[in-house]
Amino acid sequence: MAKKNKVQRPKARKPRGFPDRSGAELVTERLMLERIAGVYRSYGFAELQTPAFEYTDALGKFLPDVDRPNAGVFSLQDDDEQWLSLRYDLTAPLARYVAENMDALPRPYRRYAVGTVWRNEKPGPGRFREFTQIDADACFAPAPHADAEIIMMFIDALKAAGVEDSDVEIRLSSRRVMTGLLDVIGVDPEDQATAGTVLRAMDKYDRLGADGVALLLGEGRKDDSGDYTEGAKLEARQIDQVLRFMEGSDMADAFAGNQAGTEGAEELQKIVSTLTELGYGNRVKLDPSVIRGLDYYTGPVFEAALTFDVENEKGQVVQFGSVGSGGRYDGLIARFKGQDVPSVGCSVGVSRLLTALASKAAFEEADGPVVILALEEAEMPRYHRMAQALRGEGVAAEVYLGGAGMKAQMRYADKRGASLVVIVGEDERKAGQVTIKDLRAGKEASQNIDSREQWTEERPGQETVGEGNFVEAVTTRLA
Amino acid sequence: MAKKNKVQRPKARKPRGFPDRSGAELVTERLMLERIAGVYRSYGFAELQTPAFEYTDALGKFLPDVDRPNAGVFSLQDDDEQWLSLRYDLTAPLARYVAENMDALPRPYRRYAVGTVWRNEKPGPGRFREFTQIDADACFAPAPHADAEIIMMFIDALKAAGVEDSDVEIRLSSRRVMTGLLDVIGVDPEDQATAGTVLRAMDKYDRLGADGVALLLGEGRKDDSGDYTEGAKLEARQIDQVLRFMEGSDMADAFAGNQAGTEGAEELQKIVSTLTELGYGNRVKLDPSVIRGLDYYTGPVFEAALTFDVENEKGQVVQFGSVGSGGRYDGLIARFKGQDVPSVGCSVGVSRLLTALASKAAFEEADGPVVILALEEAEMPRYHRMAQALRGEGVAAEVYLGGAGMKAQMRYADKRGASLVVIVGEDERKAGQVTIKDLRAGKEASQNIDSREQWTEERPGQETVGEGNFVEAVTTRLA
Repeated sequence: MAKKNKVQRPKARKPRGFPDRSGAELVTERLMLERIAGVYRSYGFAELQTPAFEYTDALGKFLPDVDRPNAGVFSLQDDDEQWLSLRYDLTAPLARYVAENMDALPRPYRRYAVGTVWRNEKPGPGRFREFTQIDADACFAPAPHADAEIIMMFIDALKAAGVEDSDVEIRLSSRRVMTGLLDVIGVDPEDQATAGTVLRAMDKYDRLGADGVALLLGEGRKDDSGDYTEGAKLEARQIDQVLRFMEGSDMADAFAGNQAGTEGAEELQKIVSTLTELGYGNRVKLDPSVIRGLDYYTGPVFEAALTFDVENEKGQVVQFGSVGSGGRYDGLIARFKGQDVPSVGCSVGVSRLLTALASKAAFEEADGPVVILALEEAEMPRYHRMAQALRGEGVAAEVYLGGAGMKAQMRYADKRGASLVVIVGEDERKAGQVTIKDLRAGKEASQNIDSREQWTEERPGQETVGEGNFVEAVTTRLA
Repeated sequence: MAKKNKVQRPKARKPRGFPDRSGAELVTERLMLERIAGVYRSYGFAELQTPAFEYTDALGKFLPDVDRPNAGVFSLQDDDEQWLSLRYDLTAPLARYVAENMDALPRPYRRYAVGTVWRNEKPGPGRFREFTQIDADACFAPAPHADAEIIMMFIDALKAAGVEDSDVEIRLSSRRVMTGLLDVIGVDPEDQATAGTVLRAMDKYDRLGADGVALLLGEGRKDDSGDYTEGAKLEARQIDQVLRFMEGSDMADAFAGNQAGTEGAEELQKIVSTLTELGYGNRVKLDPSVIRGLDYYTGPVFEAALTFDVENEKGQVVQFGSVGSGGRYDGLIARFKGQDVPSVGCSVGVSRLLTALASKAAFEEADGPVVILALEEAEMPRYHRMAQALRGEGVAAEVYLGGAGMKAQMRYADKRGASLVVIVGEDERKAGQVTIKDLRAGKEASQNIDSREQWTEERPGQETVGEGNFVEAVTTRLA
């Protein structure tokens, strides 16, 4: 046997672009998602879990004129030759589900979903190919009331997750208003090259201001790095109209006689007035620079921004910015059935919101578990019993396993981020006592204690109690 | 444009063998998983989330002597030519993670994981290719104490999920005891054909009894349908030894002088005595018929069975049976590093446990939401405000959306499983009143009411209250 030991062993490595996740980040995410889902349920949105896979054609992810899936999704061929792809968002599977169960669903159909999505993209630092989304959508739910509800619920969800009310700003615009604007200035909304360039320029208003956007609407713009962006080649009169619109001139005025624009503007006004009556008015702002990339939107669109200041990677103070978005997509389900289903939804940017909560310390880091040292082999049941007594009081407690000495066990407790260590050695046991060491207090004290003598004398954060009182002593310390 | 309307539309259908999940089943599963995870956390097990994909070689899923993955897993080739597979359980990714982070992890390393796993198998009725698992494992955790802990925790988890203490039975055996038994009766444990046939025969003890197992250990057995199963061809003396062992003769006696058997039996005795000292003794039973199929087990193995009676599909009364299992696998991580890592884990059979809980009605079905009818377009903000007031009291409430008449809205409430319907029509509004219709009470009453007159007179489950009292009236009805 010894001769055959040259085994080829696989290398233990996680796949490129995929994360292993653990620790406080994951704990916070779980709590955050549960709080958001709780708000969605309180609005009557019920959970739907669709599978990770969809047929590639149902996702709309076949490459044009090619019989192969888009490289942006993970795809494989089933044994019956049909192509399957992993979902890249939660909206496309919803559209398939609604189309498949059209007649059985209540109308409106409100659902939320939380799950993993996959993108087959080039991985990079902080860019993962798998992440979590949490979405809520209402189908068979026409504007403007369903939109007002979704926005209201989205604000409630952000607050439940731990964001301050005063930090939330919903920036609201509308696809129909954009169509109206293009109409009014004389650009064909179907002329995707020009219309797209105009919308992308407007999207940059926050960052570049009126002058920068004017260049992008006109001939073009050279940025600080020297890169040149071709402009939309609008005339001065058109550029002026766009800028006046963005600077907030009266919409009704701007769209006089234009149907899409007028209706879109009225819809937005109704949403804003409903939200104002319900006490959300100061959280919502009309903002024509909200364009949203997804081409399936057909009506109101919005972004949720957090307005508190943070430093960006260049050390500049900037607003935290977007933590989610949503909008109306009346035509998406028509892909299957040819019949519009008025629908509106929202999606939290889970990792962005986690970052925001961390920067505001909105979640307290939970105490580590209590570690009970295992010092005498014959006393293992006693240690387990002590752990059970603590769990009975809602304290997470674990018994060391593995038969190492006291030093190694203390190192373990430290690595584990334990709050307290509970020690019953032979001496304690015979005296009917328990020693409790507070690792947090010890750490704090060590910054103020100068000498080893002082330490030994004061033994910061350490106490010995009767075994009958140890549960109380632990819960008191953790309180 | 009209001429181009003959669009090829994809058919809305979910992929073969994958479920869409919603409703009470999903709500119960979420609560059940959260309760189980809560127990795991209370034992100091922290969550780990590994990605859905692993490199196929890291999963050990290349077909022997072929450069292609096993057909039992979903696999695809990454753009750097490496094969990726979706995880088929949560243990293989754990082994990869521990091997990859060997030096950084605390020892013992206790983790739990909950997530989707995929099996590329032929789908059938009730056989899905995607399902949820929840596992807990302790690595760098030698027997017997870690095993006792896992079993204790597993019992606590089942109880937290809603199973009665007295319904749980942990059936415990050991790979080392099996090896010892094979040694003692003179079968080479490495002779996989004979050893496997013996173990498979023993696995059937519960179902076939001593006589059936004796046939399978000997020449072979013809079952009721006429199918013949080849036996292990043991001699009468060997068969007798196996049966005496299964009928519970003293293990120490059976293994006199056999190292694996003696050590395995001692290990089991220590686990049982620890569990007995901790008050779990009457939930644990040594049971040599527990074999467990997975070939990576190296020590104690166990199954958790629920002992209450149910009817099987043939109408026979049988025990509910297995809802989970676990065991020790000291050699699994050695695949990567060549170094044994003593480990033990357990896995709940999520869908089995859900079925068990449903059959015992362990989860109350939650009340449906309160539906607020939308009868006057101009009053939408009022309806939203009423819903908000109910949510403030923890009541899930939704406003109808969509502008349909009262009848359609009542049908919606019914389809939605609403508990109550809240009605403010023009009359109520002008009178400062709110009508509350209890759909549950109405349904109950309709079974006892004979005539339309009686119904109109009594209006079961319907009341009209002042608008200032409606929240209290709703919460009182739901209490």
